[in-house]
Amino acid sequence: MPLNPKLLAPGSVAVIGASDDLSKTRGKILHCVKAAGFSGPIYPVNPGGYATLQGLKAYASLDDLPEVPDLLLIGIPGAGVPALIEDAARRGCAGAVVFSSDVVLADMERAVEVARRAGMSVLGPNTEGFYVPKAGLAATFAHVVEECIAHPPPAFPSQRRVAVVSQSGGIGFALFGRALAAHLDLHSVVTTGNEADLEVLDFVEHLVEQGDAGVILLFIEGLKDARRFAAVAQRAAERQIPIVVMKVGRSEAGQRAAVSHTAHLAGADTAYDAVFERHGVIRVFDAEEMLAAAAALSLMPFMTGNRVAVVTTSGGAGGWAADLLSAQGLEIPALSADLQQALMAHLPSYASAGNPVDTTVAAAEQKGRAMLAVIEALAASGEVDAVLLNMGLSAKGRIDGMAPVLQPLLARCGVPVLFHSHITPTAQNLQALAAIGAHGFPSFRACAAGLDALRRYGQFQQQLAAAEACPASKTVRSPLLDARALEAGVLGEAQTRELLAHYRIPMPPSALVQDAAAALVAARDMGFPVVLKIQSPDIAHKTEAGGVELHVSDDTLHAAYERLMSNVRQHAPDARLEGVQVQKMMPPGHEMVVGVLNDIDFGPLVMLGFGGIYVEVLKDVVFAPPPIAHGTALQMIDRLKASAILKGARGRPPADLAALADFIVAVSRLAADGDGVTDQIDFNPVLVYPKGQGVVAVDALVATHVKTPEETH
Amino acid sequence: MPLNPKLLAPGSVAVIGASDDLSKTRGKILHCVKAAGFSGPIYPVNPGGYATLQGLKAYASLDDLPEVPDLLLIGIPGAGVPALIEDAARRGCAGAVVFSSDVVLADMERAVEVARRAGMSVLGPNTEGFYVPKAGLAATFAHVVEECIAHPPPAFPSQRRVAVVSQSGGIGFALFGRALAAHLDLHSVVTTGNEADLEVLDFVEHLVEQGDAGVILLFIEGLKDARRFAAVAQRAAERQIPIVVMKVGRSEAGQRAAVSHTAHLAGADTAYDAVFERHGVIRVFDAEEMLAAAAALSLMPFMTGNRVAVVTTSGGAGGWAADLLSAQGLEIPALSADLQQALMAHLPSYASAGNPVDTTVAAAEQKGRAMLAVIEALAASGEVDAVLLNMGLSAKGRIDGMAPVLQPLLARCGVPVLFHSHITPTAQNLQALAAIGAHGFPSFRACAAGLDALRRYGQFQQQLAAAEACPASKTVRSPLLDARALEAGVLGEAQTRELLAHYRIPMPPSALVQDAAAALVAARDMGFPVVLKIQSPDIAHKTEAGGVELHVSDDTLHAAYERLMSNVRQHAPDARLEGVQVQKMMPPGHEMVVGVLNDIDFGPLVMLGFGGIYVEVLKDVVFAPPPIAHGTALQMIDRLKASAILKGARGRPPADLAALADFIVAVSRLAADGDGVTDQIDFNPVLVYPKGQGVVAVDALVATHVKTPEETH
Repeated sequence: MPLNPKLLAPGSVAVIGASDDLSKTRGKILHCVKAAGFSGPIYPVNPGGYATLQGLKAYASLDDLPEVPDLLLIGIPGAGVPALIEDAARRGCAGAVVFSSDVVLADMERAVEVARRAGMSVLGPNTEGFYVPKAGLAATFAHVVEECIAHPPPAFPSQRRVAVVSQSGGIGFALFGRALAAHLDLHSVVTTGNEADLEVLDFVEHLVEQGDAGVILLFIEGLKDARRFAAVAQRAAERQIPIVVMKVGRSEAGQRAAVSHTAHLAGADTAYDAVFERHGVIRVFDAEEMLAAAAALSLMPFMTGNRVAVVTTSGGAGGWAADLLSAQGLEIPALSADLQQALMAHLPSYASAGNPVDTTVAAAEQKGRAMLAVIEALAASGEVDAVLLNMGLSAKGRIDGMAPVLQPLLARCGVPVLFHSHITPTAQNLQALAAIGAHGFPSFRACAAGLDALRRYGQFQQQLAAAEACPASKTVRSPLLDARALEAGVLGEAQTRELLAHYRIPMPPSALVQDAAAALVAARDMGFPVVLKIQSPDIAHKTEAGGVELHVSDDTLHAAYERLMSNVRQHAPDARLEGVQVQKMMPPGHEMVVGVLNDIDFGPLVMLGFGGIYVEVLKDVVFAPPPIAHGTALQMIDRLKASAILKGARGRPPADLAALADFIVAVSRLAADGDGVTDQIDFNPVLVYPKGQGVVAVDALVATHVKTPEETH
Repeated sequence: MPLNPKLLAPGSVAVIGASDDLSKTRGKILHCVKAAGFSGPIYPVNPGGYATLQGLKAYASLDDLPEVPDLLLIGIPGAGVPALIEDAARRGCAGAVVFSSDVVLADMERAVEVARRAGMSVLGPNTEGFYVPKAGLAATFAHVVEECIAHPPPAFPSQRRVAVVSQSGGIGFALFGRALAAHLDLHSVVTTGNEADLEVLDFVEHLVEQGDAGVILLFIEGLKDARRFAAVAQRAAERQIPIVVMKVGRSEAGQRAAVSHTAHLAGADTAYDAVFERHGVIRVFDAEEMLAAAAALSLMPFMTGNRVAVVTTSGGAGGWAADLLSAQGLEIPALSADLQQALMAHLPSYASAGNPVDTTVAAAEQKGRAMLAVIEALAASGEVDAVLLNMGLSAKGRIDGMAPVLQPLLARCGVPVLFHSHITPTAQNLQALAAIGAHGFPSFRACAAGLDALRRYGQFQQQLAAAEACPASKTVRSPLLDARALEAGVLGEAQTRELLAHYRIPMPPSALVQDAAAALVAARDMGFPVVLKIQSPDIAHKTEAGGVELHVSDDTLHAAYERLMSNVRQHAPDARLEGVQVQKMMPPGHEMVVGVLNDIDFGPLVMLGFGGIYVEVLKDVVFAPPPIAHGTALQMIDRLKASAILKGARGRPPADLAALADFIVAVSRLAADGDGVTDQIDFNPVLVYPKGQGVVAVDALVATHVKTPEETH
């Protein structure tokens, strides 16, 4: 059920358990909601018989209110909360925020059921609530909000306003506070606590649909309904609203923390990564990285390229920035001779325009005239996709002096321009940057994080547009994937072949024959050497029964066939024989592994990796959720650390990447169609041949969720 | 020549070109030296006929001074500088700081020669000078020093005072300013500019010998004399003074910047890494990391273990910190049941003591009583090597309330305790931490950098002590390594064998025989199969002459020997034959590559890597300078990304790591002894067998610097 929108935009608010004591949570809640400038009536409710509370007329109970309030803010001891929620739901309240941290969750579940049936939304328990500054609505007791109301920050312009959505109240409001200190244009902050009813995805979805926020910062420990994440992220991508996520649980200790903190199972971290990657969700690992991404995405155009000009008044800082950005995969290209000449026209002779562009401090003088000319020339050159400008921002009024020229320049130049000061910058210069829609990043690492976010999101949007332009062809679901048709446990060879053939997953040529003559015809057709395998529903272990002949050539086929039949007659005289499988022995190629695993949170995920012990030890595998488009499959190959091997390292011929990508696409269709029916699927090895010569799955294993008759009973 | 110590501790100072105009560099220099509280006489020198400058009696020239000043601060146009230096040297000045950036370096070189002969030290040109606060000596025009003098920061206690040494003036003083803002206990800052005379290593050496500074922060673009670095770093290690280095030039663009900025060749970055690693020098890549390392090393005990307790008032922040620290290779171990119980005795029932220890905000109340008890119990437990404490530091006086108990606790607890606030901390709380010798780190990433520095340096010192306890056995230098004895170019098989045998580098068993009967005896002794190779100074290409027989068995030896001799008689009838080399064909093992390359800056470096295309593509190689102790060799193996393969991944038997380490040690002795004579040495492959079964270099190539007679003439 979507959240009741009146929760975030109520006509009236009642504070349950309101108090005059501002040191108490219940006192702070009333104070915040009052001070933030809420335009509707506020009803303090307290059975203690107060005439007024914090100067507002007080009420003993909900019965006494002149109307049914839209929103209840509940800070009373947990035992009384479930009954109160049920009562409020029956009265027709739209929403409640439960700050209490000692609510028994089982009781809460029943109350939430009642609320849901009545269309009422509940946030919490154990939440720090939310704050929507422009609406003047502070449903929280967070200290940073009290501060923000007492000393309202100036408004700064942006392209996209920033919203914070967090399961953790402490982190949510800490991020909000840090974003405020960084002069970001904040839309709102919501913290969801134990998520008895509303969860983070409800708010992300609401924000995306509402469209006022242009960047969403998300802190999660685990998702109640992980599969819903894909749909919500997809919608955000369509509306070009980037989501920046910090998710706890990459490490074992992090997982422990998530479980003990809000009882969220953190889930398989690689699965989250794969789903984030698919939907353009930008994952970060600390607050500085998150704020840097937020600043860049909020203020600057997305990037589709990778090339950065580093412009600096300090030569030492230029090299340092170049090293850091390069380590993050950004390119600092040498500039063309023409462009260098154009830049040097503005710079002293002892400057250097190679990139890093060392302007020397002279360029910052005269209101930064030379510096501004350099930025303009770089932005117009088409040789770079962004400009990182390092200059000392300790001198008083440095930015104010540049602002009249800088502001229109930034607005028209079309590429991100990031500011950094190697010298500790003054607060005034940072604020002056914010006032013209620019941002002073606190470190080169933060600049790199900002650029990375702009590039990742820009490239994601580009790919999305490309994918929409040429939609993938549809395949028909295999009728075998009906649970009634499918074998239980591990599929047999026949069903496996049938299933893979349906999805056009290439296997070695093979034929089922009934005599040696037919075997010879088939083998000559496919090419020697071949393998002969007995085919019988009664022989599970073919090798033990002498039912496999390897390396069979034209000369030896007849003898091998006879030996096979004689072995089987001897070892399993009663077995029903369906014939003999002749299969081509494939020549060696690059050995890859492709598989489908079933993630507990997200369902099927397609895995790609190199075979062999080296790469297994180095964990060189990548994951992506199905369906997978051809372009995405090529990207998966690229993401392998050792992908250079497939591209022709050390003078070897390049491998058939297109065929490998087709293979991944085909497996992803099987994975998607098999969701809920197939369990694990492994192709190991998949042999990849030189360009134009295709790929083949030498061995395939398909395990199903289907139960055997014994298991079902 | 060591720097003249009077440069940094002069009795008198003359400011050449001194001015009343504080907007000019020459005015700022006089202002700084005056304002910083220098105790000796200050002589402004300016030929303009001033009676006073900035209130001090002015002089027209050096001739007019009442004495020969110890230190000259020179800010005049570059053309006049070399003559001035020569003049000052002749007069007996001890040192000069040349701020001028337009000095012709060739002229400067001559002046520096004169100065050196007179025992005078010159800093610069193109330097921003230095500042030694406690000595009241500010030989600089840096804005941050002006500020620091105008508003002296409070003094904060430390275990080790921090000195900044930088080639770049901009970066040096920027780091100084950031360190000040972070309340570090600063010893001094020196910037060396173009290093016509004094270079960064002179100052590092001086600081190390002097011993007042306990941590040295070093920013370099490249070293004038890289080989000297090892000696200086070695001395710092002996005196337990950690060096934290930021070196530009990891990326191509960074190298470009270094060259264009101060004309330093940035050198092979991997060579720098290897030398840093050897001498316990901690390399960082941004200012935040550097300051974090500086704060930790300045204030806290070194760590020999890896285990960190994360203690947090916010559950969300705990998981986030655990993920970040784990990603940096730190361990967040689950705590024992006993310890958890002991912690829970101080915490509310809804807290969690698993590690992360989620104390909940209650622990911060009552002057942090519960929090302090938790730290005490963790530090005393022996289960962790450090404590990271995350708590909101936005509440007024939070640290002041805890300080009376916290300060003695930190002093006695023996493990580092790092503070972090997920909520933006107040300046007052951060300063209160500094006042008791603690530090509020600005991010979890900074905490990780601080812990990493403490661990790396602690473990380095531990290894150093262990190495001193058991000194390596000495080998005698091979007489072959005399340039007159050694073959030019690539060594032949005989000299190669002799050289490797001297250094006990294991090769396959082999024997030189004169007939088939002797070959059979030798081959039976070493075990089949063997290789037979003709041995002749006249046959360079054995294979083409039919002079090699592979896969020779007991049965085929006789025939193979005859075939070999007959081939050679036919193809090279006039060749002088020394006999036939019988060599055991080695069974397969793990294929490694060991080599020695000659770095342009540092000389010989030993390289270790896996053989094979996968690992070549993944660049899984490590370097270390010779000599290499057994323990260091084992660490090199550990540093390989795929080292798990050698330890028995996937149920294979573990490899003979001890023998591989011995091999590396032996190669390192050859590398050290061959310095200046051998050029490149390659062992490829080196086969590593299961534990106890040794290693063997199947193929060896030794190239020398020795010139052939034609080249010498």
